[in-house]
Amino acid sequence: MSDVRTAASMTSEAAGLTSGYAVGLDVGGTKVFGALLSADGALAGTVRLPTVRGREGVVTSVVRAVEELALEAGVLPGELSGVGLGVPGLVDPATGSVVHAVNLGIDGEPFALAEILAARLGVPVVADNDLNVAALGAAHALGPRGRDLAFLALGTGLAAGIVIDGRLRRGASGAAGEIGHIPIDPLGPLCPCGQRGCVETFASGTALGERWPSRRGRPAPAELFEAAEAGDPRAVQIKAEFAAAVAAAVRILVLTVDVQHVVLGGGVSALGDTLLDAVRVALDEQSRPSPFLTSLRLADRVTLAPTDVPVAAMGAAIAGRRKVS
Amino acid sequence: MSDVRTAASMTSEAAGLTSGYAVGLDVGGTKVFGALLSADGALAGTVRLPTVRGREGVVTSVVRAVEELALEAGVLPGELSGVGLGVPGLVDPATGSVVHAVNLGIDGEPFALAEILAARLGVPVVADNDLNVAALGAAHALGPRGRDLAFLALGTGLAAGIVIDGRLRRGASGAAGEIGHIPIDPLGPLCPCGQRGCVETFASGTALGERWPSRRGRPAPAELFEAAEAGDPRAVQIKAEFAAAVAAAVRILVLTVDVQHVVLGGGVSALGDTLLDAVRVALDEQSRPSPFLTSLRLADRVTLAPTDVPVAAMGAAIAGRRKVS
Repeated sequence: MSDVRTAASMTSEAAGLTSGYAVGLDVGGTKVFGALLSADGALAGTVRLPTVRGREGVVTSVVRAVEELALEAGVLPGELSGVGLGVPGLVDPATGSVVHAVNLGIDGEPFALAEILAARLGVPVVADNDLNVAALGAAHALGPRGRDLAFLALGTGLAAGIVIDGRLRRGASGAAGEIGHIPIDPLGPLCPCGQRGCVETFASGTALGERWPSRRGRPAPAELFEAAEAGDPRAVQIKAEFAAAVAAAVRILVLTVDVQHVVLGGGVSALGDTLLDAVRVALDEQSRPSPFLTSLRLADRVTLAPTDVPVAAMGAAIAGRRKVS
Repeated sequence: MSDVRTAASMTSEAAGLTSGYAVGLDVGGTKVFGALLSADGALAGTVRLPTVRGREGVVTSVVRAVEELALEAGVLPGELSGVGLGVPGLVDPATGSVVHAVNLGIDGEPFALAEILAARLGVPVVADNDLNVAALGAAHALGPRGRDLAFLALGTGLAAGIVIDGRLRRGASGAAGEIGHIPIDPLGPLCPCGQRGCVETFASGTALGERWPSRRGRPAPAELFEAAEAGDPRAVQIKAEFAAAVAAAVRILVLTVDVQHVVLGGGVSALGDTLLDAVRVALDEQSRPSPFLTSLRLADRVTLAPTDVPVAAMGAAIAGRRKVS
């Protein structure tokens, strides 16, 4: 373990050697998606590898992805300006230590992932929650408009990453954006968090899959929206209720932090324009009786995360690169 | 009107002359409360005058309050480092123009209040919403801990002023902190805003007064809390439901921006510790079934606005002083 050095000490060592390329990795439960970012912030390459779960497995998967992207850039991993990781779990961004990430098979004792990778690769490594890096990536993709946004992830659960003045708002205890656990109906379903009627119990992929289970092997949201399109009355209703709950999440974000943009991301956002349209219709319906809400032009603030750009991996690269700037 | 100069031009003129004293005024519908702030940020004097409503009336009231406080400091109004106003209504903080302030009798065309006062007094004047200056004042009163807080005003309505990294978060359209209009019960009462079941319909002084009207000429919240203390079962229930709704507002603030402190202010906060205790009990009850909520230690974050310091007037003075720094 004598070669385990900290990211901080690597920073100064690498500063003179950097090629300007940064690598960002979106480390998911089944795959690692990597992005190579050139010095001017453009996407210069991508890679997709299966995730090997468990501590050593994750390290091996990440090292392989970084090596492939460095090769694509024509540099050694140690010549990268930095590596950033987005991890689906609780991460201490100050140290890059993973507290737990159940989908990666990392639990129990905190795991010094960034530190171990920095030593293995010879390059500074930072790690953060995947939602936080996705918010940074979405802000980057939006350009100057991206200085003020929430990235609203509709996946297994629902949560947002908030960017204010171009900076991630983590909050006093890292709970900023955990709007999925705000109750909006005292008679709503029990939430795994222990409360009742949380936003997440209405507006997540999980909630949707429970009300409309996948029947034909495709993702439940796609099957539901298709059935609604075909006129199935129950599907029409479930779709409308889902869209209304997503709209409630948008309303909460605007009436609290008043972000300029709300970017819909996460697995459910693969539905694309049909989701965006449904959420905008729901926002307009909710605003109709209220001149105050109408004045906030909620529907105009909502956009889809770009599909031509891997926002989480790019955001991770930006977070990694920033460490050495 | 040839002597109507802008705050910006006054700034440079006054810069060389300033005594270091700043004046802040909390301009309410019935009274103007003023604070004199010394160069080191200490409260050096206060004044309380009746508000004369209407455009010219408000100007006259403010001029008189500023003159009294300047006299107390032993300087001319033009030698103050700045004047700040908190106004109960919609204000453009960039220009200090009042768009509307129904309780002051200002409505219709926007009124260039700060500009007119700057010309009349010979000192830079800024104006902002009263809740925003109260949040700044609460942040100042809390010292270094005040860099991250929400000032939750429980008055006629319910809204918050949010301070992040020591700066007021106004939001993209000035709607940050308007959490009173987040619906939390689809079967709740109709809100004057046009929606149903807004936080404000459960957790404002107005909501409380409707459920427990004042019978003995004292403020409704005081009479309700006393009746609950005396064991009246209906009062006990209404008090608990009110506290639960205030707790819901705290939970919304923490699960969205994750502020370190939530400071209870506004008219209802005059209840003091009995309110604070009730809100803390409600937060603990809401957190009990949820390890996640428990980990956020919501009850520990809630405090009362200081009663020995006029937070809105002091915040206004700070806002006014900053303009010339």
